[in-house]
Amino acid sequence: MRLIIEADLDYHLPEPADVLLQVEVAATRDQRIEAERLTVTSPLPLAAVAGEDGVGQRCWVRGDGRMVATYRATVVIDRVAADLVRLPATPVRLLPAETVPYLMPSRYCQSDRFEGFVRREFAGLDGGALAAAMTAWVGSALDYRGNVSSGDTTALDTFASRSGVCRDYAHLLVALARAGEIPARCVAASAPGVDPPDFHAVAELWLDGGWHLVDATGMARADELARVCAGRDATDIAFMTVFGTATMNAQCVSVRRG
Amino acid sequence: MRLIIEADLDYHLPEPADVLLQVEVAATRDQRIEAERLTVTSPLPLAAVAGEDGVGQRCWVRGDGRMVATYRATVVIDRVAADLVRLPATPVRLLPAETVPYLMPSRYCQSDRFEGFVRREFAGLDGGALAAAMTAWVGSALDYRGNVSSGDTTALDTFASRSGVCRDYAHLLVALARAGEIPARCVAASAPGVDPPDFHAVAELWLDGGWHLVDATGMARADELARVCAGRDATDIAFMTVFGTATMNAQCVSVRRG
Amino acid sequence: MRLIIEADLDYHLPEPADVLLQVEVAATRDQRIEAERLTVTSPLPLAAVAGEDGVGQRCWVRGDGRMVATYRATVVIDRVAADLVRLPATPVRLLPAETVPYLMPSRYCQSDRFEGFVRREFAGLDGGALAAAMTAWVGSALDYRGNVSSGDTTALDTFASRSGVCRDYAHLLVALARAGEIPARCVAASAPGVDPPDFHAVAELWLDGGWHLVDATGMARADELARVCAGRDATDIAFMTVFGTATMNAQCVSVRRG
Amino acid sequence: MRLIIEADLDYHLPEPADVLLQVEVAATRDQRIEAERLTVTSPLPLAAVAGEDGVGQRCWVRGDGRMVATYRATVVIDRVAADLVRLPATPVRLLPAETVPYLMPSRYCQSDRFEGFVRREFAGLDGGALAAAMTAWVGSALDYRGNVSSGDTTALDTFASRSGVCRDYAHLLVALARAGEIPARCVAASAPGVDPPDFHAVAELWLDGGWHLVDATGMARADELARVCAGRDATDIAFMTVFGTATMNAQCVSVRRG
Repeated sequence: MRLIIEADLDYHLPEPADVLLQVEVAATRDQRIEAERLTVTSPLPLAAVAGEDGVGQRCWVRGDGRMVATYRATVVIDRVAADLVRLPATPVRLLPAETVPYLMPSRYCQSDRFEGFVRREFAGLDGGALAAAMTAWVGSALDYRGNVSSGDTTALDTFASRSGVCRDYAHLLVALARAGEIPARCVAASAPGVDPPDFHAVAELWLDGGWHLVDATGMARADELARVCAGRDATDIAFMTVFGTATMNAQCVSVRRG
Repeated sequence: MRLIIEADLDYHLPEPADVLLQVEVAATRDQRIEAERLTVTSPLPLAAVAGEDGVGQRCWVRGDGRMVATYRATVVIDRVAADLVRLPATPVRLLPAETVPYLMPSRYCQSDRFEGFVRREFAGLDGGALAAAMTAWVGSALDYRGNVSSGDTTALDTFASRSGVCRDYAHLLVALARAGEIPARCVAASAPGVDPPDFHAVAELWLDGGWHLVDATGMARADELARVCAGRDATDIAFMTVFGTATMNAQCVSVRRG
Repeated sequence: MRLIIEADLDYHLPEPADVLLQVEVAATRDQRIEAERLTVTSPLPLAAVAGEDGVGQRCWVRGDGRMVATYRATVVIDRVAADLVRLPATPVRLLPAETVPYLMPSRYCQSDRFEGFVRREFAGLDGGALAAAMTAWVGSALDYRGNVSSGDTTALDTFASRSGVCRDYAHLLVALARAGEIPARCVAASAPGVDPPDFHAVAELWLDGGWHLVDATGMARADELARVCAGRDATDIAFMTVFGTATMNAQCVSVRRG
Repeated sequence: MRLIIEADLDYHLPEPADVLLQVEVAATRDQRIEAERLTVTSPLPLAAVAGEDGVGQRCWVRGDGRMVATYRATVVIDRVAADLVRLPATPVRLLPAETVPYLMPSRYCQSDRFEGFVRREFAGLDGGALAAAMTAWVGSALDYRGNVSSGDTTALDTFASRSGVCRDYAHLLVALARAGEIPARCVAASAPGVDPPDFHAVAELWLDGGWHLVDATGMARADELARVCAGRDATDIAFMTVFGTATMNAQCVSVRRG
């Protein structure tokens, strides 16, 4: 599947500050970038470093006054959405080194708190069957609603409020998966069909030797997600982190099938 | 029902400190105190003030070095456990003044976070039918287990861990009830059948013009609970609050039918 | 001092809901209401109950669609701002019953966490001298700034961010005072000189047998504050609590010397 | 400097569980392992994977009933403690990829909350001068005390309680450093002079192109710390993470100069 991605950010920084952008689609085995351009009004040259876990990249820019970033990309997704339910479980002691940090609780995905719920609700399941059951549970237990959560909302909050946006769905699924001994990370992605159109966040679960993209909101299938970056939770995958203050003038994201 | 209550506290205070005790059974319409004695090793005279909402009393003592408190009481409980399910709902705007604070979220009972869950899980219920459903839900959703919670554990934590002790059951039920527009407070109580024997905590829900004791652990019926004090959550009803530091040497609580 | 208070609230409730308003100035010994009118578009009659601690009143209204509330009052403040520093300390064991709840930590004023800081920063002080030192400390340690805090911000957050609005100043002072064994509550008030004009929040400290209003922001003196209601923290003193959802169309508060 | 390290863990696991051990000293450029032996009673073979950031290793074992782990090592530390104050600052946009995650807030080191305090308290400082000032500040602002913190204690809590153990000192220094745009991680280490003897936790700050060990408790100098592993906060560097439940029978750690 070919995706055409357009993102326009327009911000104001009252004082000069370094800004970290994570908007570029990652070049990985299962998604190929046909064309791409990122332009930013920055008084200093852009500086890119590898992203978390080597997925994608972080782009440093300098903001001073008005900052406009424009991103255009055409990406071909070449990924088959796995049938999670048939993937076998990997005992934690056999996990590869790079997945072990994703077993641990993090600020917004306090998996250590969910062990009791997971043990009761999903008794007898593990591996892909557990992942599939958790994904279905999150999808049906939550209502997709804006304005009920904020940047401080954690998986614990969402578990009680039973509502939120993509970020909250991803956090809750990641917290449950880790509590079920499945390495899980959060992924920023672009996908068509996200309503309202915006940067998207999904979960990525390690099963049967590989990472599998899972969108608990049901908005996007694994074969139509363009992965941008990955991390422990929203902290790591924000599309913009300002080392100072900024206010938004306008922002627009569009993703369509090409 | 007649209850014979014996509580022995033995603590060490490295430096002199004021100590607030809430261990005495409250004299109320539905529980009559036949005999009672509280003795405390205190270098200053005991000073009692009325408890929260006028329920029971708070007793100030002074601790310095070893502090031993002994409480003995014989209490007759004269209360009929109501059948909650038949009690009608009171619209919040018709609630008496003294119950309104118990609609509000508190530190350990963050009812504002649970509105989404309550709306989904208990749709269509209100008043006593809602209270009964919530009580049954908490009783079956949680496992009674020590050592999984602490003094910092909140209703949000318990909702995810699905386990805890009486304090945690009470906090969760209180949080749910408030989210369902039922005034709810936490009550410290003495009851036989608490295992292991200890000070007990239960919820008290305002329904049909009165407060109703509810023990979501199922350990005690409303007609065998001797109420000590009431408050928003565990903060208010601790049996001992030390304005300094103390370590426990020994503590023993016994409640039996007399 | 005579204050002329005008408050206009204009909200939209997508579904019918009960709404609790706390905007009316309390009639107390030290503030006399010369004229007052609250009008609300409510399909059900207004119902008032006594406020927390008997200060002021809570007014229940019904919202359905557009809800407009208009409040006009002329109030004479007859209060002398005490010189805190000379007020003696009251040992906690001699405090009256109604002040004891205000020694306890609450959701936004986690005084139990601040004991170490208070012990170190304010060593050797107690009573009014301690209160005055804490007030000065909060006033100079914080920057008054909007948009850095939210309804979820606690005294712990403000202590680290060193910035906030009146609510945050009040929470931090209340938390410190309680940690210093001074009963402290939060008070909603109207005052001239609040910039930008809005409902105001201040602390009230129990010293030498009475409650003393203290505005750590320095915006208002005790003799120009019209007390509306009091409580443990922002939870209790919100000017509007909606038992459902509402969005603001417009809101305007004006307080001037008359 | 040569260190002789002995650690003995004796735990009971009521049910079989995978256990992650991080007790082995890392072989790095600045610390050489002369002799080492880890033995664990495990019904399954030990499985080691690389540690976080490639520092040291994580060792998986299986616990079932009694689990005894014995670690013996002789390590030569060949590291010069840098004079932090003279190290220049690196603008965040010039940081290497692997340090960027350590600019971000984490569960126990919520650096985003401390920006206001850092800006006020350490105005005008950056790089090594800032790091040195922060280290001195933490050292003098906190009292080293056991029993005031727990595994749930965060940097925000410690900032208010002004007391804690090595873990709390490290968390607070790390949170402050990140708020000051210095990448900072937590490091588990062995050191002589830790009192009481135990596994130790310190901070590691990225300055002038390299990681610098800093013990804000003042117990250990950088040239006498044997690094075990590194991570965002205590979550990542626990000496033992049990994927189930365990109770401690006994534990003993000894580190001496050899």
